Amino acid sequence: MFNYQIIIEYDGVNFIGWQKQKNGLSVQQKIEKILTKILKKKIIIYGSGRTDSGVHAEYQSAHFSTNSKINNKFLFLNSINFFLNKKKISILKVNERKKNFHARFSAKQRKYKYIIVNRMAPLSLDFNRAWHVKSNLNFELMKKAGNLLKGKKDFSTFRSSSCNARSPIKTLDEVKITKSGDRIIILFKSKSFLQQQVRSMVGSLKYVGEGKWNLKQFNNIIKSKKRASCAPPAPACGLYLSKIKY
Amino acid sequence: MFNYQIIIEYDGVNFIGWQKQKNGLSVQQKIEKILTKILKKKIIIYGSGRTDSGVHAEYQSAHFSTNSKINNKFLFLNSINFFLNKKKISILKVNERKKNFHARFSAKQRKYKYIIVNRMAPLSLDFNRAWHVKSNLNFELMKKAGNLLKGKKDFSTFRSSSCNARSPIKTLDEVKITKSGDRIIILFKSKSFLQQQVRSMVGSLKYVGEGKWNLKQFNNIIKSKKRASCAPPAPACGLYLSKIKY
Repeated sequence: MFNYQIIIEYDGVNFIGWQKQKNGLSVQQKIEKILTKILKKKIIIYGSGRTDSGVHAEYQSAHFSTNSKINNKFLFLNSINFFLNKKKISILKVNERKKNFHARFSAKQRKYKYIIVNRMAPLSLDFNRAWHVKSNLNFELMKKAGNLLKGKKDFSTFRSSSCNARSPIKTLDEVKITKSGDRIIILFKSKSFLQQQVRSMVGSLKYVGEGKWNLKQFNNIIKSKKRASCAPPAPACGLYLSKIKY
Repeated sequence: MFNYQIIIEYDGVNFIGWQKQKNGLSVQQKIEKILTKILKKKIIIYGSGRTDSGVHAEYQSAHFSTNSKINNKFLFLNSINFFLNKKKISILKVNERKKNFHARFSAKQRKYKYIIVNRMAPLSLDFNRAWHVKSNLNFELMKKAGNLLKGKKDFSTFRSSSCNARSPIKTLDEVKITKSGDRIIILFKSKSFLQQQVRSMVGSLKYVGEGKWNLKQFNNIIKSKKRASCAPPAPACGLYLSKIKY
């Protein structure tokens, strides 16, 4: 058996998310269908993690086992992309890995990017690619609040009620907030994230930017460890899975 | 009479270009229709310049005259954007200008941005937003070639045969080529451009990147002043009108 890793880009708009579900088309299901067709045996792929419906990926990573050796990566990628691209999925790379490589369990760091466009006018170029926030956001204050999220802590406040992670304690290695024109870009790096953690943190940072919470209140919200104290999660369309490090 | 300037963002995909034409919907026509509806008198808008079918704008500028004073910019923008946004046009700003302000003739500098995604895999997130170039481009060589385009010269090589500018002599203030991952971004600044000049220059820079032309050959092509020596123009989908300075 061979173990292959694939790197995947997708536009989340047309999917119910990464993971197979009964109520619609998922990215995983679409890729498995095409791989099964090309490799002529039932293929199951394992992603580095789920993304919700509407969330995009610049760099999702997955692996699968097969007894067919992929001799020509170029032909393999051309063939799979021919079928996938109509659905706005692109396989960027395929690499053979050791038997024990697992896209999810071998991951050392995950990076997410969130894009906010902060202006009155509706989005044309960034429609479905960013969160349109009309209220004027205080960027400097958001940066300070972002710093409060860094480090090892209990992130229960930012955890979806359906999250089944064993522990709410995670270490957020980096929160980097930059601004360019009317765009605010927020980068998060961590070994792993709780379900809806990024969108919950972004929704709460937006509350700080709007002046609904000051920094002390924001810190209290973190420390409360109560889901009920979190701001509404930011919408899926502004979120991108950006990198997985192994 | 009042003279107003509007700043416009649009996704070029659904339009035959900026300018009114008989064979399809243009950005100008769509905006004029909505302005005429809102201001209740026939409105004609004058853009800073045309963009071809499929070309995007992050910042197009236009002006129009009206005898209706716009008292509440906020309501005006909300109203016009309500009608325009379905077509992926956003009016970012409206400002009253002096009687002699002309969006085209008062412009001091125009900035264009061109995005190339250089990789084998087809585009999902950047579909219709960038030029997908599969052949491996030599970025450093493209940067050097870009420098050869700078300054005041005869740009006949890069001029569409249907261009009706009085003179092919233009001054290119800046050509800046940067790379980030698989993206190559090329910025051009000039008081004005010839028809299809940017796309023709980008198509030719790509030839250098591919090794089809060395720097000496590229320079000879510039100096030839012959349209026939130009590479095929780059596609519209990678081009963005990015800024107009007055």
